[in-house]
Amino acid sequence: MTLDGIWAAVLTPCDAAGAIDVRRWVEHARRLLAQGCHGLALFGTTSETQAYSVAERQAALEAAVTAGLTPAQLMVGVGCCARSDTVALARHALGLGLTRLLMLPPFFYKNSTDEGLYRAFAEAIDGTADPRAEVLLYHFPQVSGVPVTRGVIERLVAAYPAQVRGLKDSSGDLAHTLDLIAAFPDLAIFAGADNHLLDVLTAGGAGTISAAANLNAPASRSVHDAFRAGERAAAEAGMALVRDVRATLQRRPLIPALKAIIATTSGDPAWRRVRPPLVELDGAATQALLAELAAAGWQPPAPPRAA
Amino acid sequence: MTLDGIWAAVLTPCDAAGAIDVRRWVEHARRLLAQGCHGLALFGTTSETQAYSVAERQAALEAAVTAGLTPAQLMVGVGCCARSDTVALARHALGLGLTRLLMLPPFFYKNSTDEGLYRAFAEAIDGTADPRAEVLLYHFPQVSGVPVTRGVIERLVAAYPAQVRGLKDSSGDLAHTLDLIAAFPDLAIFAGADNHLLDVLTAGGAGTISAAANLNAPASRSVHDAFRAGERAAAEAGMALVRDVRATLQRRPLIPALKAIIATTSGDPAWRRVRPPLVELDGAATQALLAELAAAGWQPPAPPRAA
Repeated sequence: MTLDGIWAAVLTPCDAAGAIDVRRWVEHARRLLAQGCHGLALFGTTSETQAYSVAERQAALEAAVTAGLTPAQLMVGVGCCARSDTVALARHALGLGLTRLLMLPPFFYKNSTDEGLYRAFAEAIDGTADPRAEVLLYHFPQVSGVPVTRGVIERLVAAYPAQVRGLKDSSGDLAHTLDLIAAFPDLAIFAGADNHLLDVLTAGGAGTISAAANLNAPASRSVHDAFRAGERAAAEAGMALVRDVRATLQRRPLIPALKAIIATTSGDPAWRRVRPPLVELDGAATQALLAELAAAGWQPPAPPRAA
Repeated sequence: MTLDGIWAAVLTPCDAAGAIDVRRWVEHARRLLAQGCHGLALFGTTSETQAYSVAERQAALEAAVTAGLTPAQLMVGVGCCARSDTVALARHALGLGLTRLLMLPPFFYKNSTDEGLYRAFAEAIDGTADPRAEVLLYHFPQVSGVPVTRGVIERLVAAYPAQVRGLKDSSGDLAHTLDLIAAFPDLAIFAGADNHLLDVLTAGGAGTISAAANLNAPASRSVHDAFRAGERAAAEAGMALVRDVRATLQRRPLIPALKAIIATTSGDPAWRRVRPPLVELDGAATQALLAELAAAGWQPPAPPRAA
């Protein structure tokens, strides 16, 4: 399986006590694959990952694989502030057969130097010490506060050509994403912003790893397939829905908005729950959002076929 | 023991493999107490805390208490992104007899609402579930990216009057610190910036929890004692050294600078080590810093008496 296409940054449902709701999580993951996702990024930013300890994440991932999710269709966020945590998560994932590791830099201290960030990533890769590991560097400066600079990427690619395989650019800055695609032709460069999907594909990028795909994967998949089939006009036309849904979501607190829409359209109110410091969307805000999404032409993806 | 005075934000030495060097840590802690610190804040921002897993921090703290550090002279940072981690650290510390818990808000997601942050702190306090717990809220927006707002403090004080006992304001904004002292007379308000020590004491604040105290605790203690003795002129005169040392340190990467000075003045090069994403100060930078500190009138505190 190649490292490209439409990947969802999968939401993490939680139970009333705040624990990861593995049953709903796996159900949602299966739905997203059925809706056309090429793969799933678990425990990224959209996943409220940091609300859970290393042990909680490991237990959930193990349960998901045991429940039948295919490791080759998954990537998993492993980047923590502590090397020992990052290495523990990476080794555990590899032990389950997951090789794609999405790696944030240590994100507590700000104003890190390239040398310091290089060392942090290098220690994590060295500590993981597994030739199967496929690391995707994770650039999300607005949230992490720590950009993954060109200088750091260059040093890592030079030092770990077999391990550093991609990058997720969640900067939302298309010019930056295109620069990375041009500069690192051997890396699978994903945008976090699915409104850039067609530009990324056109430039030779890998695709998107997107939050909006939790709601709108079929639209991105259609654009992807049209692009790959050389149907440029269809791909461009398909981008309208991708762009409009994203723009509508971006005007809200993104994770609570996504969960509220799933809760409402699936009739499963448990999906509204978020973990602090997030706060769930209230009913009125959810209805307003649903109306805007409908006006943009969005419809809930069809329910999955019964198993 | 009251919750005030001069507290050091204790550095965490590490060994060549990057693990916490408990022997040097405990030695340093003893030196700081011998140099006049009223208490020690372990595992705060100056401590490279986030470089270590929960289990690594717990093991080190246990070793430090076993080695004879007095729990009543300690506070310990417990605020993590995951409630389960914060609660685990808090309960473990309380089990060792440490009651003072310095609590960062969850610091991954930015732009949190007051409601979300209130819930995060409330869940951590509820989960700790120990009437002995004395929580100090930790406001350090430049590093954590997540301010602890007045609104959050007010709600927490109202809901947990017995547990929420203080606040460390590391904003470096004296007006903000003085506002908090005026607004929350029942909280022990500490400044992180020791250049504000005398202003904080004069306003009725608790004192300082400072990084510079790793080098310069005697100067702060002298100011504190002169202030408490009503010797205003002596207190003001003493602030010159406190201010100048801080200003000199602030022009460098703070943690590497502090460690390099200790390494050099103690003749123990192992102290230079820092954990990624930090990078150690090089020899030339260290000599330049030492020269500036000497020009400011700073001298290494006398070595501790032999045990």
